[in-house]
Amino acid sequence: MGEFELLAKLRERLPAPGPRIRVGSGDDAAVTVPGGATATSVDAVVDGVHFHRDQATLVQIGHKALATALSDLAAMGAEAGEAYVVLGVPPDLGEQDCLELVDGIIALAVETGTTLAGGDVTRAPALSLAVTVVGHAATPELLVGRDGARPGDALVLTGELGAAVAGLLLLESPRLAAAVPAATAERLRRRQLEPVPRLAAGRALASAGARAMIDLSDGLGGDAAHLAVQSGACLRIDATALPIAEGVAEVAAAVGRDPLELAASGGEDYELLAALPPEQLGIAAAAIGEGGETTLTPVGEVIAGKGVEIRLPGGALLRTSGFDQFGP
Amino acid sequence: MGEFELLAKLRERLPAPGPRIRVGSGDDAAVTVPGGATATSVDAVVDGVHFHRDQATLVQIGHKALATALSDLAAMGAEAGEAYVVLGVPPDLGEQDCLELVDGIIALAVETGTTLAGGDVTRAPALSLAVTVVGHAATPELLVGRDGARPGDALVLTGELGAAVAGLLLLESPRLAAAVPAATAERLRRRQLEPVPRLAAGRALASAGARAMIDLSDGLGGDAAHLAVQSGACLRIDATALPIAEGVAEVAAAVGRDPLELAASGGEDYELLAALPPEQLGIAAAAIGEGGETTLTPVGEVIAGKGVEIRLPGGALLRTSGFDQFGP
Repeated sequence: MGEFELLAKLRERLPAPGPRIRVGSGDDAAVTVPGGATATSVDAVVDGVHFHRDQATLVQIGHKALATALSDLAAMGAEAGEAYVVLGVPPDLGEQDCLELVDGIIALAVETGTTLAGGDVTRAPALSLAVTVVGHAATPELLVGRDGARPGDALVLTGELGAAVAGLLLLESPRLAAAVPAATAERLRRRQLEPVPRLAAGRALASAGARAMIDLSDGLGGDAAHLAVQSGACLRIDATALPIAEGVAEVAAAVGRDPLELAASGGEDYELLAALPPEQLGIAAAAIGEGGETTLTPVGEVIAGKGVEIRLPGGALLRTSGFDQFGP
Repeated sequence: MGEFELLAKLRERLPAPGPRIRVGSGDDAAVTVPGGATATSVDAVVDGVHFHRDQATLVQIGHKALATALSDLAAMGAEAGEAYVVLGVPPDLGEQDCLELVDGIIALAVETGTTLAGGDVTRAPALSLAVTVVGHAATPELLVGRDGARPGDALVLTGELGAAVAGLLLLESPRLAAAVPAATAERLRRRQLEPVPRLAAGRALASAGARAMIDLSDGLGGDAAHLAVQSGACLRIDATALPIAEGVAEVAAAVGRDPLELAASGGEDYELLAALPPEQLGIAAAAIGEGGETTLTPVGEVIAGKGVEIRLPGGALLRTSGFDQFGP
């Protein structure tokens, strides 16, 4: 099957475009009429680097590629708009496989109100997906960067930590499944394979006055450091306050690791960490509670200084300078 | 070197962002304030499929990846705005190589007024680039799709055909260089390796009332068929009117092919084919002449029917139905 034929088949599966689209997939470019401001992010995943075809279904691979891209829009407080997908197809991936992959993308697109507005298909040595997503807001001021955290701000976290890394451990070592009930193991694996972009929570936090926000893709420690560096402040996180997902303690014990360390360093939870004025905490919690999608937990505060301080259960402080990776 | 370190080094090289950018590379997403309408397109190139690292410098590979993406914006009559680049880096591509590649992208970005507003770097088995470009126009009506050609319209073509395919033949068989003067061979190779997106010409044609437009990436025959299919009309092209680049006849002769056939079927010239009301021809030619970037040649007309008819030098008509590849 040629590129054009596959593209035509893929296009047939696309749901109706959203209201901002004037010209959808199939022309030289998609034409949209955006609102006042757009947030645009691009994310790529490659077989053998970001996922393994023997650990995930093609539907899950498609889902996750779009989910991780949309998570960046969630972290801006943007409304999901359009996605553009580049599919790198290896020789052993057939037409039906490509359609399955795209079905995974489409299902999440429909769920999140994202229009698949364009893309490209190319041969490639390994299955790869590069997803560009465009989100919208009425004004640029409504979008939340990483650089606005100020001393005195409260730090809040959506959802729970550690599920994705525990799920990864379960996928890599199926014998670990004995450590938790079967339903828990399945839930943890799904958090690894089918992450949920916190779009509604991100918009709620932005509306509630979040001054800085980031999604946790690399792990709380590393992502908090990004936020600290870009805000020129120090994030003090209370480790005892961190919400750890059910089953993470058991999986951590089974591999001889501290559950807290696993939860704070494991990536891919795609929860949101936000800094906001403490007087806005109640409004933010209420806004997120209304959606019912997830929870909001206060996990610390922003103080003067730089880097990240994690207050451990015994009271000791673990300091990490987030500046190392960017130079002085 | 880690991903973050490379990204930081790449960011240091980026020129100042354009006026629409509120938050550039380095946050969860870039924030822009677009005008009334955007045109968005994505294009991917992979080593061994779209280029060969032994035939092109890394600067040229970077240039071409952005140029082919921008060419889609030219075909919409859009003003170049932002680009987002995913770099798939194979094990044998070092830090200096990545910077060279990005220098090729940056040089063309500066030349075309494009802001590199974001991107992603990942390990990959082969060098690959996926480039998303966003173009702008005051209103969506100013952007030109593929579907507006109407019987009676004149067909015009920017620039000349055949140079890119002749350049490719020269790269693949260096012995062919004897067929043309050295300067001509070099010019043909550069048309293959460093294509020029016809952004100014595209905007001029859009302003002059072009009703349908496409850039020639797959070759005149195939791309004319796309335009015919999407407009529901027939494109009658006069083969004797086609402007053939200098040296193409000699290279064609050296490989035993008809120069006209080579020019009409060879891809990657990235010239623009447009349909516009015949009374606008003078205005369009004048607008393009002013820019001095390229030329405009009338090459035929739009008639009722479907597909593409090429009138050959002897007067015979070669018909191709562009509908085959999309079904009945």
